[in-house]
Amino acid sequence: MYNDKFSRDVHSFFRSPVREIFKRVDLNAIYSFAGGYPSADTFPLESIRETMSEVIDKYQGKAFQYGATQGVPELREAVAQRYGVSVDRVQITSSSQQGIDVCTRVLINPSDVILTSSPSYLGALQSFRSYRADIRGIAHQADLESFRQAYVSVLQQVRSEGKVVKFLYMIPDFQNPSGESLTLEERQMLVSLAQEYDFLIVEDSPYRELRYEGEHLPTMYSLAPDRVIHLGSFSKIFAPGFRLGWAIAHPEILDKIYVCKQSLDLCPPIFDQYVAAEFLKSGRLDENLAKSIELYKGKRDLLLALLEEHMPAGVTWTHPEGGLFLFLTMPEGFDAVKFYDTALDAGVAYVAGEFFHPDGSGKNTMRMNFSFMTHERIEEGVKLLATLLTQALS
Amino acid sequence: MYNDKFSRDVHSFFRSPVREIFKRVDLNAIYSFAGGYPSADTFPLESIRETMSEVIDKYQGKAFQYGATQGVPELREAVAQRYGVSVDRVQITSSSQQGIDVCTRVLINPSDVILTSSPSYLGALQSFRSYRADIRGIAHQADLESFRQAYVSVLQQVRSEGKVVKFLYMIPDFQNPSGESLTLEERQMLVSLAQEYDFLIVEDSPYRELRYEGEHLPTMYSLAPDRVIHLGSFSKIFAPGFRLGWAIAHPEILDKIYVCKQSLDLCPPIFDQYVAAEFLKSGRLDENLAKSIELYKGKRDLLLALLEEHMPAGVTWTHPEGGLFLFLTMPEGFDAVKFYDTALDAGVAYVAGEFFHPDGSGKNTMRMNFSFMTHERIEEGVKLLATLLTQALS
Repeated sequence: MYNDKFSRDVHSFFRSPVREIFKRVDLNAIYSFAGGYPSADTFPLESIRETMSEVIDKYQGKAFQYGATQGVPELREAVAQRYGVSVDRVQITSSSQQGIDVCTRVLINPSDVILTSSPSYLGALQSFRSYRADIRGIAHQADLESFRQAYVSVLQQVRSEGKVVKFLYMIPDFQNPSGESLTLEERQMLVSLAQEYDFLIVEDSPYRELRYEGEHLPTMYSLAPDRVIHLGSFSKIFAPGFRLGWAIAHPEILDKIYVCKQSLDLCPPIFDQYVAAEFLKSGRLDENLAKSIELYKGKRDLLLALLEEHMPAGVTWTHPEGGLFLFLTMPEGFDAVKFYDTALDAGVAYVAGEFFHPDGSGKNTMRMNFSFMTHERIEEGVKLLATLLTQALS
Repeated sequence: MYNDKFSRDVHSFFRSPVREIFKRVDLNAIYSFAGGYPSADTFPLESIRETMSEVIDKYQGKAFQYGATQGVPELREAVAQRYGVSVDRVQITSSSQQGIDVCTRVLINPSDVILTSSPSYLGALQSFRSYRADIRGIAHQADLESFRQAYVSVLQQVRSEGKVVKFLYMIPDFQNPSGESLTLEERQMLVSLAQEYDFLIVEDSPYRELRYEGEHLPTMYSLAPDRVIHLGSFSKIFAPGFRLGWAIAHPEILDKIYVCKQSLDLCPPIFDQYVAAEFLKSGRLDENLAKSIELYKGKRDLLLALLEEHMPAGVTWTHPEGGLFLFLTMPEGFDAVKFYDTALDAGVAYVAGEFFHPDGSGKNTMRMNFSFMTHERIEEGVKLLATLLTQALS
């Protein structure tokens, strides 16, 4: 009835299949490897309650008033200090999803090209499509030179079409959905290409601090601070319910994001920002993060061991060094979207991998989250899923 | 350095002069009639602290987890009940500014026409311009038939240009910036025109519940629920620091807003929503609102009396029955933007009226806020402003 009223962009919107699953089933009633929810066990309720009371005492009415579009100074400074950047390079965002969306808004005209890994984060693909960007997904290659060539060939193809690559969207650490990370050489190679072909990089780093083994690698931002927009999130190191993230970038880029954010929502939630700032500055965040890492490492180890023990032959998976996800590959011909009804009816959920592939490939893949459920439920869930997969593949 | 990187939309962004003022001066160090800040005295700190603690007890980890894009059911239901609509017509927004922005996003293609009053809310004009809408401002006319004719003539003009009016943006109650309200007959006339010329109405109602005299009038939404998107805000009836508002509309429209919001920020802040829901359901919101109304009525009365006493001849102003603002008109030829430096140097701030006029007219007008300052500071501020104006006009 309103079809002639909607904007063209609306026809490019697509629904998150993950959020549609949440509408269909009660996450707590099934074994859910879907979603990217942190464990509620990592939310330090008493410590949050205490921090909130301290914020009310300290900031009084200011904690509930309008505030600066860039974010409250206390939180910007805390973020700047934690990540070793100057405060004029920090914009607080109302969720790192907003960070992605606002970058797209200030950089993309319809049909401009965005490069992504394939698979890549669904919420980013949603945002890119909503602005009618031309998304080119590039699969990872184990060999560095082949990986580089895959990029070069897309870059040359785009150039031959007379189109412009505006930016590369990349999650270098414990990627959503694959769980994999870029090596230092891969980061350097991509930054070099960005310089050579003159495009920006949007580096999305929500999982970076959840490392369970191996050494921290430099951010892409640190390799080229004027070419990379670095996005961070409090959702996985504190709690997603606050909807707070940050963007670190050259002030000239941040200025456009700032003006855009004025008309998007004026400013991020004020009280939540003060709580995050106090939580961070008091050391509670790091204390809590250490506990989260221990908890998630245990869950990852458990999931890897269970897959090893129960999955039928022909199924393979990634071995993430951090983050919340791993990625399963079934034999060619398997269709994880079709299999979805079987799984859901039996009481186990995942996200089909094809949704993460810009070109709709990856039909034989699925993403599994290991942060949300308890050990017991992870075990029961894997056994159930393995039984269903064994039946489907035989 | 990034000029070839930015999207076309960026060139249509414009900075809020209000927010730029806040960057330039410390609001607490001057007499500020600028801004649209509620008084911090209306934030019931102890009552909020108590509610927060109750939310932690009641919802535990759920209060800090991701949540539904539409908003948490408890808050949607509380809003639906308060405003007498069904819950499937309620979307919680991350600020009513987001409500405006997301309506524009799902309805407007570049060069589509938006009708507004002239003057109108600056943040809405910012959002409309950022999507490169064609904004046609229409001044209020005291005579109903002349007012209708002003609209008809613009509608016919737009039609003759082969363009489409997508919606009318209107703040019917205690408008920002004028402080004036639409009569029932004016509301009915505009709704009839919307039906006749087939456009939607975005009804922005952040101040509606702050009425200090006179009878409540029906919302435009209640006159045509399938043609009006009604936007509400917790900023003026609770506290702006939570960044929460709502949109009430036909489910088919809300569905597009919902999918758009998925890629904008996934969901509104969760903890804040539970706090707002509990605050509302417990009756604390109404209790606090009654106190705010009493406080603001006193400030409005004071400001009106002071203007009467101190303003030089030739200066006129509106008499708002509610809200946070009144609008001052100086003699033709006066330039409130130019006068701004004089005023700021002397220590008093306002917002020049021309920023609220889509066509840049209204140079001899200014907006005055009366909610933010104490009685004492309102008095000193008016005396100072009146002295400066008397000098400037003589």
